[in-house]
Amino acid sequence: MQAEEFPLGQYEELTDTKPHDADAKWAAMKSPVMLSWASTDVRYGKHHVPQLAKLSNACTLKAWRGERVNAQAVLWTNTDLNDVEMLVSDLRSGANVIPASKVRSHFVRYVMTDELNKDGKGGCGCRENKAEWDSSIVADALDINKWLPVQRKTAQPLWVNVWVPEDAKPGTYTGTITVRGGGMDDKVLNLSLQVVNRTLPSPREWHLNLDLWQNPYAVARYYKVPLWSKEHFDAMRPIMKMVADAGLSSITASIMHKPWNGQTEDHFDSMVTRIKRLDGSWKYDYAVFDRWVDFMMNEIGVKGLISCYTMIPWELSFDYYDEATNRVQFIKAEPGDEAYAEYWGSFLRDFARHLKQKGWFEKTAISMDERSMEAMQAAIKVIKEADPDFKITLAGNYHDEIQADLYYLCIPYGARFPENVLKERRAKGQISTYYTCCTEPFPGTFSFSNPADAAWIGIHAVAGDYDGYLRWSVNSWTRDPLRDSRFRTWAAGDTYSIYPGPRSSIRFERLVEGLQDAEKIWQLRNHYKKTGDKSRLARLNKKLAEFTPANMTAEKERNAGVMVRELERLLNE
Amino acid sequence: MQAEEFPLGQYEELTDTKPHDADAKWAAMKSPVMLSWASTDVRYGKHHVPQLAKLSNACTLKAWRGERVNAQAVLWTNTDLNDVEMLVSDLRSGANVIPASKVRSHFVRYVMTDELNKDGKGGCGCRENKAEWDSSIVADALDINKWLPVQRKTAQPLWVNVWVPEDAKPGTYTGTITVRGGGMDDKVLNLSLQVVNRTLPSPREWHLNLDLWQNPYAVARYYKVPLWSKEHFDAMRPIMKMVADAGLSSITASIMHKPWNGQTEDHFDSMVTRIKRLDGSWKYDYAVFDRWVDFMMNEIGVKGLISCYTMIPWELSFDYYDEATNRVQFIKAEPGDEAYAEYWGSFLRDFARHLKQKGWFEKTAISMDERSMEAMQAAIKVIKEADPDFKITLAGNYHDEIQADLYYLCIPYGARFPENVLKERRAKGQISTYYTCCTEPFPGTFSFSNPADAAWIGIHAVAGDYDGYLRWSVNSWTRDPLRDSRFRTWAAGDTYSIYPGPRSSIRFERLVEGLQDAEKIWQLRNHYKKTGDKSRLARLNKKLAEFTPANMTAEKERNAGVMVRELERLLNE
Repeated sequence: MQAEEFPLGQYEELTDTKPHDADAKWAAMKSPVMLSWASTDVRYGKHHVPQLAKLSNACTLKAWRGERVNAQAVLWTNTDLNDVEMLVSDLRSGANVIPASKVRSHFVRYVMTDELNKDGKGGCGCRENKAEWDSSIVADALDINKWLPVQRKTAQPLWVNVWVPEDAKPGTYTGTITVRGGGMDDKVLNLSLQVVNRTLPSPREWHLNLDLWQNPYAVARYYKVPLWSKEHFDAMRPIMKMVADAGLSSITASIMHKPWNGQTEDHFDSMVTRIKRLDGSWKYDYAVFDRWVDFMMNEIGVKGLISCYTMIPWELSFDYYDEATNRVQFIKAEPGDEAYAEYWGSFLRDFARHLKQKGWFEKTAISMDERSMEAMQAAIKVIKEADPDFKITLAGNYHDEIQADLYYLCIPYGARFPENVLKERRAKGQISTYYTCCTEPFPGTFSFSNPADAAWIGIHAVAGDYDGYLRWSVNSWTRDPLRDSRFRTWAAGDTYSIYPGPRSSIRFERLVEGLQDAEKIWQLRNHYKKTGDKSRLARLNKKLAEFTPANMTAEKERNAGVMVRELERLLNE
Repeated sequence: MQAEEFPLGQYEELTDTKPHDADAKWAAMKSPVMLSWASTDVRYGKHHVPQLAKLSNACTLKAWRGERVNAQAVLWTNTDLNDVEMLVSDLRSGANVIPASKVRSHFVRYVMTDELNKDGKGGCGCRENKAEWDSSIVADALDINKWLPVQRKTAQPLWVNVWVPEDAKPGTYTGTITVRGGGMDDKVLNLSLQVVNRTLPSPREWHLNLDLWQNPYAVARYYKVPLWSKEHFDAMRPIMKMVADAGLSSITASIMHKPWNGQTEDHFDSMVTRIKRLDGSWKYDYAVFDRWVDFMMNEIGVKGLISCYTMIPWELSFDYYDEATNRVQFIKAEPGDEAYAEYWGSFLRDFARHLKQKGWFEKTAISMDERSMEAMQAAIKVIKEADPDFKITLAGNYHDEIQADLYYLCIPYGARFPENVLKERRAKGQISTYYTCCTEPFPGTFSFSNPADAAWIGIHAVAGDYDGYLRWSVNSWTRDPLRDSRFRTWAAGDTYSIYPGPRSSIRFERLVEGLQDAEKIWQLRNHYKKTGDKSRLARLNKKLAEFTPANMTAEKERNAGVMVRELERLLNE
């Protein structure tokens, strides 16, 4: 059977390429179907009897009001189970109820992944020849389908997430997850959730600046809907809501064709219409830009920066629609060239006028990726000449010479801002963050990365004294993202952590966990300072200091889950 | 030495691939350098001692006032001649003078050509693999450079054209062409021109409808000038003037991207800006179309149809600039489809409005190439619905079902209009013409075709009772048109007969000769009818009747030059 292209509902996973546990091992199961709580730190193999320290049908979680907490269970079977489903009960604490609607339950689905580069030093570089990397399927996507057939001799992980209402009364809530179907007796997991007497603000209030780049073009392609049509926005709404609920601060806008040289499966196009008239004059139209920004700002509720990419693309080639040829043409010009200044100067003046008219000028930034410092200086000059008040952002290496011009500066994982600069920047209201990409083997959000890495990322933002975290992709899907996370460049999964549907992932849930931890740290530090609880503050800061590259060893990286749990214990006291 | 790309001034020809006359044959020349009048029917070989019936330094031509007449001489040498030039004298008849400025003299230049298809049945089809066709260099282009080095053991043809002023007094004018340089003694050719007491009207007044498709895109590329810039129009002016001087009746305009699927080296693009707004509405802009038409109409003086190609392109894919994607997009739709009717209907209504505003509506036609009759009927329906008064043209097979809708209908060489239809069409002011293309081995205007074929074409238009003649290309240049007339499709030279410079060609001069003959026939028939000179009228019509496919044999085709000369003798009585 040919696989359906671009499925949104039920779909079949790709065949695993790896050895399976032998029949004897499956036959040795105590009963034909087993179910137990397991660890959120582990991606359980599909064709392996799960190796659990102990079997348990009881799980205890702790959470603040307003916090989301995760748990993972695993079902494994030596018999075919058709149409398994999960039934979630309300969680009750005496008369108080966290309704079942606040508890998400998902089948964890397997996606094809690959591995780090052979030297183990990261996942950058071209991967056109898939055969050069070892491939296998790995548990990652959290399915939205309510039932799933589970084949014999497979394990099926189950993911549970409780979003504690902000107004939940503190106390210990209990409930059940019932796994049913396939002719077996109902299997029940008990869940106990202790809600502590602290409140996590809503994601929009979190202090960390989160910049996960959104790709509307991927959504239009995968959902087979015309770009910027009602159907397109309908498809994007739950996806972007999911990103926003992680605390998204920035709207990703493209002001030119292929700002990143088409590096993703679905390249970004210009959200600005730029026409060169036959008489040589320029005409701009912002219909697309306005609609996208309005959607993200007012429907999704992202209140932070509108980051406009880019004036220094990787290929220095700038598009416009040319009335003479009636084709899209490209100006090839470098920052510093007269043609560059003309193309961008003319646009930026008009853009500033338009943004002021919309009331968006103060929120908008001209955004750049790392280029040579000379190029960035030349670009900054053009921006400042067009309007000295334009905000400018950069994701790239730290340069002392230009940092003062950068309202938002995001430097690579491991790099540090000089202390006095950080102080100055904060005094001026400038934002200073860090990013991860394909470079780091740890902390990774590849589809094969250890789940705890993603949680570690948010905690590190606080530990490293950054104002936030940036990742260049959250939904830049591969061609067949539900089944195959491998891409022509970079280690698998680098380009997305939200799947079509939308479906969250182990990575995305754990990323949110770390971002929540970061906010909890912020809240607790404030609280301890206010209450003068120096001892707890010192203990927290000491633990937090471990979440830095200097402290990490290969052993510690492998066990990041333990570190995260230890820290979280302090956050839930 | 690497050949200069896109030369306009001096250039070197490609090396001939054919055997040369042996040294002994060159050594047998009566003097080291020879010069003689020769025939305009012959392309003299570059590396061959010319085979002339007789050597002569006297040439006698006959012409009407206002007519252009051609002569060819040939210079051949057994010694290197540097920088040969031609000096033309005034032509004098007693006190009357035709000034030297009316006499053009050209070195005939050699261009790489190929041959008919192997079955001899024409020159259609793909020729990507050049090695499958025999190639050689052939005398065709009339150079505009005033001097030329002539190497030993080569022949160098010289072309002379006299454009007799309309006010020239009848009589016999004499003058000289002096060939000088390279250290030889001056060589002199005598030219005698008898101007007869008849006047050929200016080309704009000629009765034949001449439709040679102009390609502005080729000019922009070859001259390396921005499309529709002042430099582009400066480059086009003498080229289009040359076409207009052949009696051009139609302006070739393109109203979509690649109306002929990019069949030429430089494809036609849309002269109409067509923008689909984000809200789905259409916006049109005619800046390019207006400028091109204004140039051809008012600067070049083409007063006939504005032929707008096309609504039924070979690839049914229709361009527009899409504000949503900020890219050029294509609608794939067939005549009869709703999307087709929407795309074209919306445009045609706006186009009609614009044309009426410009005062051009009556001159403009929506033009099509041969497609299925059903498709053409569907297209005609859309046009008529947009504006029932839109003129429509077709170059293609005759269809009784739609001919009445076609203001201008051009059918293939050899096809005939039914007599009553022709009568009706003329009564209604409709135009009925014929075309040649790659199909016919004769009459050909490939770069290797016999020169007389081109003259035969215009005469046949009258003989076949057509209102005019169409050729789909006059300057759709190959990549390196001065040196290599071969193309990826069709026999060489099919795509152009005017060379960059502009340089005329043997083919183009002889085509003009035939078009002049056609007008002369028209004038003489009228005159004979008026004067009741039935005998001369009958003699002319009898001769003319020979210029039809039914009369031609392979032998007659080879000797078309004799037929043409015999007819021309009657025209100059």
